[in-house]
Amino acid sequence: MTARSSAVSARDIPEATVARLPVYLRALTALAEDGTVTCSSQELASAAGVNSAKLRKDLSYLGSYGTRGVGYDVAYLRYQIARQIGVTQDWPVVIVGIGNLGQALANYSGFRSRGFRVVALLDADPSRHQERIAGVAVRPFGDLDAIVAEHGVAIGVVATPAEAAQEVADRLVDAGIRSILNFAPTVLAVPAGVDVRKVDLSIELQILAYHEQRKSPQGDSSPTPAIAPIQESAS
Amino acid sequence: MTARSSAVSARDIPEATVARLPVYLRALTALAEDGTVTCSSQELASAAGVNSAKLRKDLSYLGSYGTRGVGYDVAYLRYQIARQIGVTQDWPVVIVGIGNLGQALANYSGFRSRGFRVVALLDADPSRHQERIAGVAVRPFGDLDAIVAEHGVAIGVVATPAEAAQEVADRLVDAGIRSILNFAPTVLAVPAGVDVRKVDLSIELQILAYHEQRKSPQGDSSPTPAIAPIQESAS
Repeated sequence: MTARSSAVSARDIPEATVARLPVYLRALTALAEDGTVTCSSQELASAAGVNSAKLRKDLSYLGSYGTRGVGYDVAYLRYQIARQIGVTQDWPVVIVGIGNLGQALANYSGFRSRGFRVVALLDADPSRHQERIAGVAVRPFGDLDAIVAEHGVAIGVVATPAEAAQEVADRLVDAGIRSILNFAPTVLAVPAGVDVRKVDLSIELQILAYHEQRKSPQGDSSPTPAIAPIQESAS
Repeated sequence: MTARSSAVSARDIPEATVARLPVYLRALTALAEDGTVTCSSQELASAAGVNSAKLRKDLSYLGSYGTRGVGYDVAYLRYQIARQIGVTQDWPVVIVGIGNLGQALANYSGFRSRGFRVVALLDADPSRHQERIAGVAVRPFGDLDAIVAEHGVAIGVVATPAEAAQEVADRLVDAGIRSILNFAPTVLAVPAGVDVRKVDLSIELQILAYHEQRKSPQGDSSPTPAIAPIQESAS
């Protein structure tokens, strides 16, 4: 097994493949939980919602080609992908902003099961500082530096209103955090070397709408325009 | 402009392209809000985080090729993509489950701005039925059929705990809903003809972790294994 562990350099993996690795990991976890020991590339591709040629190409970047006639070892491939992503290690995370979304994220079981451990919830509102959410204390934003130093926090989650998000991001960067997950509906400016990923909760809804539109009797006609053609106003 | 409006049949658009259309739409909306009138494929590709060859290929499925030396008309392309996705029409949506996540979704401005209108919030808990969240009344789950009939709801959002999600999905399908967005951490079984998309809030966090791991001094070593190799236990 040690020989197979020598993955190719991470720098060789295209960004689009990186974005699919968590999807493969989720599919493999579901297969493992169902007791599946080996799977074909077709089965795994279908579970992950990609075509099998793309899956095989993606997995080849990890040096994982399966075994002809047998397929992939589910448990091993799962470990291999988890290791490549980095979720075999423990990631201390802080969540800033404990409105409904911040609380939902603090309670979200899918973070912990992927190695993301919420070490602190930070909020500007002093009246919230006595609370515990999902077992984690709510602390003043001013404690950020101490928390980052204590826990080695590398990832910050911004769940504040849009108005506060940039200032929060600036403070996270000042505290040494170089990876930010932004749920606030605004674009954050950060220095080079800091990664920001923005979650848009409407993306999946839009993909559903695309397919729903094609199922509907009205086809792709637009009975109630919500976005009018605005070419005229651009002059 | 009418001649350019004749998009190719939606059935010709690959699923991976469909999944990127909302990302292009978001990038175009940001460009339009900045007052940008035309943009090159490189600019748009960069704003959307894809390479420009892929962008041009994707847009060619919409029959949109830009103008050589000028690029794409931002407002028109935005309308064209919105129309292709279906978000130029109004989509009545119900949200089931008003815990923290359901409330966060009810308050999420990104739904309304893309044409998704939350017409009802449904919850099993009678003590919540007097509440209004973001101006929308919380109603008993038993009102589902009447609400679907009244508003022509086509999309249901499941934001319940995992244990309740399958029963809720069954009821949504019985009420005639054929598109379900599932935030509950469970896999839903639905009949053929019903689309389910599952939101995994940890996917973006995993992509950040991938890059963070490569920035860290410890490289890709795994000091604290959160997922151990489990090949042995699969026998």
